[in-house]
Amino acid sequence: MTLFGNLMSTIFERRYIGAGRRDLDGLDMADLAQRLLTTRAESTALALAGQILERYATLDDAEKMTFFRMTVEQFNITPTRVREALEAYEAAPGKDTYRTYMEAAEPPRQELIRRLNQVPGATGRLVGMRADLRRLAAQSPEIGALDLDFRHLFNSWFNRGFLVLLPVNWETPANILEKIIAYEAVHALDDWEDLRRRLEPEDRRCFAFFHPAMPDEPLIFVQVALLKGVPDSIQTLLAEDRAPLKAEQADTAVFYSISNCQIGLAGISFGNSLIKQVVRDLSATLPNLKTFVTLSPIPGLMDWLHRHDRARAARTDPEVLRRLAALYLLEAKGAGGVPQDPVARFHLANGALVHAIHAGADTSQRGMARSGGAMVNYLYDLSRISRNAETYADTQDVAASSAVRALAKAALKSETQGA
Amino acid sequence: MTLFGNLMSTIFERRYIGAGRRDLDGLDMADLAQRLLTTRAESTALALAGQILERYATLDDAEKMTFFRMTVEQFNITPTRVREALEAYEAAPGKDTYRTYMEAAEPPRQELIRRLNQVPGATGRLVGMRADLRRLAAQSPEIGALDLDFRHLFNSWFNRGFLVLLPVNWETPANILEKIIAYEAVHALDDWEDLRRRLEPEDRRCFAFFHPAMPDEPLIFVQVALLKGVPDSIQTLLAEDRAPLKAEQADTAVFYSISNCQIGLAGISFGNSLIKQVVRDLSATLPNLKTFVTLSPIPGLMDWLHRHDRARAARTDPEVLRRLAALYLLEAKGAGGVPQDPVARFHLANGALVHAIHAGADTSQRGMARSGGAMVNYLYDLSRISRNAETYADTQDVAASSAVRALAKAALKSETQGA
Amino acid sequence: MTLFGNLMSTIFERRYIGAGRRDLDGLDMADLAQRLLTTRAESTALALAGQILERYATLDDAEKMTFFRMTVEQFNITPTRVREALEAYEAAPGKDTYRTYMEAAEPPRQELIRRLNQVPGATGRLVGMRADLRRLAAQSPEIGALDLDFRHLFNSWFNRGFLVLLPVNWETPANILEKIIAYEAVHALDDWEDLRRRLEPEDRRCFAFFHPAMPDEPLIFVQVALLKGVPDSIQTLLAEDRAPLKAEQADTAVFYSISNCQIGLAGISFGNSLIKQVVRDLSATLPNLKTFVTLSPIPGLMDWLHRHDRARAARTDPEVLRRLAALYLLEAKGAGGVPQDPVARFHLANGALVHAIHAGADTSQRGMARSGGAMVNYLYDLSRISRNAETYADTQDVAASSAVRALAKAALKSETQGA
Amino acid sequence: MTLFGNLMSTIFERRYIGAGRRDLDGLDMADLAQRLLTTRAESTALALAGQILERYATLDDAEKMTFFRMTVEQFNITPTRVREALEAYEAAPGKDTYRTYMEAAEPPRQELIRRLNQVPGATGRLVGMRADLRRLAAQSPEIGALDLDFRHLFNSWFNRGFLVLLPVNWETPANILEKIIAYEAVHALDDWEDLRRRLEPEDRRCFAFFHPAMPDEPLIFVQVALLKGVPDSIQTLLAEDRAPLKAEQADTAVFYSISNCQIGLAGISFGNSLIKQVVRDLSATLPNLKTFVTLSPIPGLMDWLHRHDRARAARTDPEVLRRLAALYLLEAKGAGGVPQDPVARFHLANGALVHAIHAGADTSQRGMARSGGAMVNYLYDLSRISRNAETYADTQDVAASSAVRALAKAALKSETQGA
Repeated sequence: MTLFGNLMSTIFERRYIGAGRRDLDGLDMADLAQRLLTTRAESTALALAGQILERYATLDDAEKMTFFRMTVEQFNITPTRVREALEAYEAAPGKDTYRTYMEAAEPPRQELIRRLNQVPGATGRLVGMRADLRRLAAQSPEIGALDLDFRHLFNSWFNRGFLVLLPVNWETPANILEKIIAYEAVHALDDWEDLRRRLEPEDRRCFAFFHPAMPDEPLIFVQVALLKGVPDSIQTLLAEDRAPLKAEQADTAVFYSISNCQIGLAGISFGNSLIKQVVRDLSATLPNLKTFVTLSPIPGLMDWLHRHDRARAARTDPEVLRRLAALYLLEAKGAGGVPQDPVARFHLANGALVHAIHAGADTSQRGMARSGGAMVNYLYDLSRISRNAETYADTQDVAASSAVRALAKAALKSETQGA
Repeated sequence: MTLFGNLMSTIFERRYIGAGRRDLDGLDMADLAQRLLTTRAESTALALAGQILERYATLDDAEKMTFFRMTVEQFNITPTRVREALEAYEAAPGKDTYRTYMEAAEPPRQELIRRLNQVPGATGRLVGMRADLRRLAAQSPEIGALDLDFRHLFNSWFNRGFLVLLPVNWETPANILEKIIAYEAVHALDDWEDLRRRLEPEDRRCFAFFHPAMPDEPLIFVQVALLKGVPDSIQTLLAEDRAPLKAEQADTAVFYSISNCQIGLAGISFGNSLIKQVVRDLSATLPNLKTFVTLSPIPGLMDWLHRHDRARAARTDPEVLRRLAALYLLEAKGAGGVPQDPVARFHLANGALVHAIHAGADTSQRGMARSGGAMVNYLYDLSRISRNAETYADTQDVAASSAVRALAKAALKSETQGA
Repeated sequence: MTLFGNLMSTIFERRYIGAGRRDLDGLDMADLAQRLLTTRAESTALALAGQILERYATLDDAEKMTFFRMTVEQFNITPTRVREALEAYEAAPGKDTYRTYMEAAEPPRQELIRRLNQVPGATGRLVGMRADLRRLAAQSPEIGALDLDFRHLFNSWFNRGFLVLLPVNWETPANILEKIIAYEAVHALDDWEDLRRRLEPEDRRCFAFFHPAMPDEPLIFVQVALLKGVPDSIQTLLAEDRAPLKAEQADTAVFYSISNCQIGLAGISFGNSLIKQVVRDLSATLPNLKTFVTLSPIPGLMDWLHRHDRARAARTDPEVLRRLAALYLLEAKGAGGVPQDPVARFHLANGALVHAIHAGADTSQRGMARSGGAMVNYLYDLSRISRNAETYADTQDVAASSAVRALAKAALKSETQGA
Repeated sequence: MTLFGNLMSTIFERRYIGAGRRDLDGLDMADLAQRLLTTRAESTALALAGQILERYATLDDAEKMTFFRMTVEQFNITPTRVREALEAYEAAPGKDTYRTYMEAAEPPRQELIRRLNQVPGATGRLVGMRADLRRLAAQSPEIGALDLDFRHLFNSWFNRGFLVLLPVNWETPANILEKIIAYEAVHALDDWEDLRRRLEPEDRRCFAFFHPAMPDEPLIFVQVALLKGVPDSIQTLLAEDRAPLKAEQADTAVFYSISNCQIGLAGISFGNSLIKQVVRDLSATLPNLKTFVTLSPIPGLMDWLHRHDRARAARTDPEVLRRLAALYLLEAKGAGGVPQDPVARFHLANGALVHAIHAGADTSQRGMARSGGAMVNYLYDLSRISRNAETYADTQDVAASSAVRALAKAALKSETQGA
């Protein structure tokens, strides 16, 4: 009944919102937005919001820019109003003066976005709208403020407490699986048979975060391999002809691929929650799992080696490559003292530590080009995650195993000797 | 697997958050809140937020007041910071100055509430927290600003687009049905057998809005009777011994009870969406339904009659009662020119019109005391809802059928003649 | 879409089957049944089956008897046909002669019941029809053969592989919970609050078997209490004011009530599967559980004591009561050498053993009357269930703990000495 | 909880059944089957049944034959026992003599299959076992009787009342969709993109019957195209580049492919139920649909034309082809007077009529080879289905539109004139 009710209702609303609003046809987007912000009749608001979203879907990039610019300019804060409200609040702090201040301090753009979101299915469209915005803002920074408005609202809407973690497997609906194929960013999926190899064997898992208002759209997903022992090669791990392990025989879970799916949710971070929740789920269902690691690329390594003239040395000697990779991960810092490597930043901020480094671990063209074939395991030790994350947040110090620290020390030593 | 995953994960998080955080034991609520706002380690944030919510659940009213006061004072905006950021933005509007302004303009209290919401199950607790706050704020207006912060966030979180309309019937889980019994505010439900009479017969319906993060808590619900013809008595409509009608034989759907369930969501309006969506669902599934009306109380009528010395006249003559009720609904206005009657305000703002007035329609003690037994049908005519709602929003004019207008006119005439 | 599809389809079929079959109105039940057995047009069959079931629902007991008698007589095997087919098969065993034999050997009544079952929702109605039949057959054994036909088919339809075990709890739909209240046979449930006390606390569980074609009807259910230690009193176990235990602290699961729900499924045994599957589920989810026992009545005890003139002795000394109860359970045998006590027969056949006997364990009026207040724990030890069940099946020997055997021996000794 | 419970339970049973039954290792299949039939301990039965199914899965064809032969021979009826029981029943008909007769008349093989079905997941395996059996019986008719036993039981288990009709679409789990690709028998599906074209457009539908005990296995499915007007070409209908129609604009639903999925369910007919229920569902959800037709192959046409020396004439003149096709469908009868064409037999028995015949309608290699490119629309007219089906069942007369009858008449005339 439920489903039926929702279905009918959706059909009804589509018809209702689509048709019978001839009076809106003559209005431009700015008029529609203005009306949406001022109407006090809810069904009118719904019709206006529906109309704006429908029309937006037909715009080309130039028209989208016009729409974004209009929104930024016409629905901005009015500084004098903010200032007056602030002064009134300072003079007599209280509920009424605070309400006036709140209304003045927030740009009407944010209320506009909230009202657009009332239409069934709007959330996904608004995420798409922000993806457009970010693309266009690269050339036109004047619309950048609107990106912050979207982000502010999405931070509330996509609050961790609202997300749902779901397994993705060979029993998952095809319309979701095709998005996994499309969004996989780390080790590309060629087709459905490739996907099946990642999902169907009993030593493979995949988990994704979903939002209830976008049930067909994964937000982020992680692919997991269950193994005996920590892996040192992505090609071995993904080999088509390997014999699957029985899940309960595995002692190690390897996060070998994490992909964000929604450009429109940039800056809203779910990755750390995802890994930690997956660690918890897996340890509850497979108590034999003792070790949770990644098998991660080191995307900035070869660039860094080139800049320091060590690319050739690293390429010819795997041991040198491992040492220099350790040095890079532990010591190469960028602005603000944070590690240069973006993948390292992600896992270290999550509370992982640099556990081991392998040469010859990714022999694909891309793997050789970016990191000379080296890969790294970041280790998630539940008992230390919080402490690691706090220490890293405070000091940017890179937590690492003694083996990795020894590698870096050896690199330093030979560099010093070499010099 | 999904459900299982969620379950395990929740258990795990509870243990994880509950236990092993001995280091938090020595901190008071202000310390915890301060740390929650400043930590950059997500698992620490989760532990802190969990701790605050657990402790809050054990506070008495005096301690809650202390917590609310602390929050209002310590995590308020800093006017000088707002002013400086505003000036910097005015001087050089751009993404960076806008970001600084946004951060300064919003009180840290709002971020505090967002971070509390990351804990699984937190949303319902925060709604409960606001219910406490509103109760206590009645005596202590200085915490009223915090109520506005909650409301601001809840407006985003409980956005219409995130709500799910579900039928409530005799196949609904018992833990939800017991809440329907508890929350029914208009025509009280005594027990489960009473509830069954409202839900099980095939000429009865009930619909509620739910939020995905509070799946066991209805937010608002409406009870519907399917009838032939517009009803003129609530006792007849609810009579225990009536013979149920076959649903497809009904031509009229009567909304005879609408109840808000969450005090903590005061000011977040769902009622109008609810009725309109139910009208749509019902017309799609039962195409024979032609008329959608309420059978509503007129809670302020007797008070108004008393004030104008017409109570006795109305009580002795049903026709006089009907005329004066029409006059009251159409002409008795309060501040801002809106109708005095709160139920009328709700339905008129939704786009309904005053359709018919009945004497002897609610002979319960409460019905006689509040309205001399009179009730009113508000009519929801889908083709006119939008227009009505807009006109009412603009002019506060009360839309009414010609019959009701004639009643009011007759009242006026006899009043004038009587004078 | 699914649900909606099913819903629509059901509505459609109801209308379709209900209406437009005016041609069936003139036929009596025997005609309808005859036609149903012979038609080769499936939609005609559906209409006929629907018509028979609809009419059956309106029959009084006398008419039902007529219907059953007619079915037994008119749709019986034809011995000469069976004999001929058997001879033909013996003469030339093969697929064709076997087919002819099969058709002749089975009475057409069974095909009639199968065809009735094609109507949506028919399975539950046929179970109800058999409940009627068994009630009426008590007086009219000539319809008893039809009961065997039903049982034969139900054994196929309600095959263990088709049943679904589901937890029943406070989140279960009300229309199912009301059946739990109605069917609870061991420790009666007074009302919904009583039910809530059995289902909501975290140290209580309930599980039921369902059949997919009767999703709203539990077939059998068991109530479980989670405790520390083996219980010796049902009143203590069910005490309203006890403090619930945390589920993970329990070491013992007690099956304190098992109720069959469907008289029409008499002779189709699910009880043993139920207990064993519940033991497995509970040990998987609550690994701290080590002991699985019942707390069971001894319904035949006082009768047996009266017959042997030991009722008074047992009533005055709890120790004597325990000894005699042990003697009764271990040694009192009925026809075929099986234990006299029906509850003992059930659990022993399942592979349980008699674990402990308690006096003063059921002080209710019924408990005192039937067993002088004594109760017994049957122990389910997963590692021994199979062996116990096989031994019992072969020898009817009663497995018991050494403590219980000692009690019985003491009883024997004092009986001998007393004599 | 439910799902979790089932999951755990399944895992548990697998372990339990798999392990710890070392005592069974020494037994051969005949021993295991014999024990399964005689044990009275349910957990032993479950272990034995599990063991038989596990071992069966590892057998090669010769071993399977041995198993089937053993089953046929050792667990057959005992004619003398049947005869004695029959005589006892004849002498004194009553419940007891009938029970003895029932037990004797049914071969123990059937009880063996019922007991195998108690293992979770067994139903699908038994369906697979019958598929093996039918394949092997082609060479070894002596095992054909066992096929009848399976069929007899499957007729009960797969009773129409137990089947669930579900839509299959692009939101269906991948593990089910891959079976649609595998089983599509009429117009082959090459890959996932091909499947998407059949399922995703809004003018396409697919429905399948499922059995609750085999939830991942479709039993039969039908593919539907929504069109304006009755189609005359399968290539046009399936054209990759066509623009999809809005579903509510369609007036015609075309069943263009019906595929049985389970060889092991041969002789258990669901096809007619399927089409009729789909017609009902579609008319309920899309009230604009007025016409329900097939676009069907005429697989035997060219063979028939060759036999009558008309192949060349038909190939050169489309009109001649249409006339001869009409003649074939209406007049070419086989044994028992039923139409020679198997597709015609299926739809005519369902109550459809021959509506129109098109030349050049299937220009694929297979279409040209089998029917010279001709196809036929069978029309499902809800108001006439029952009558048509009954008439056809009684008389084997082929219902046809006047246009088709005219075509056949023209063919007859020109044949006569030609002669």
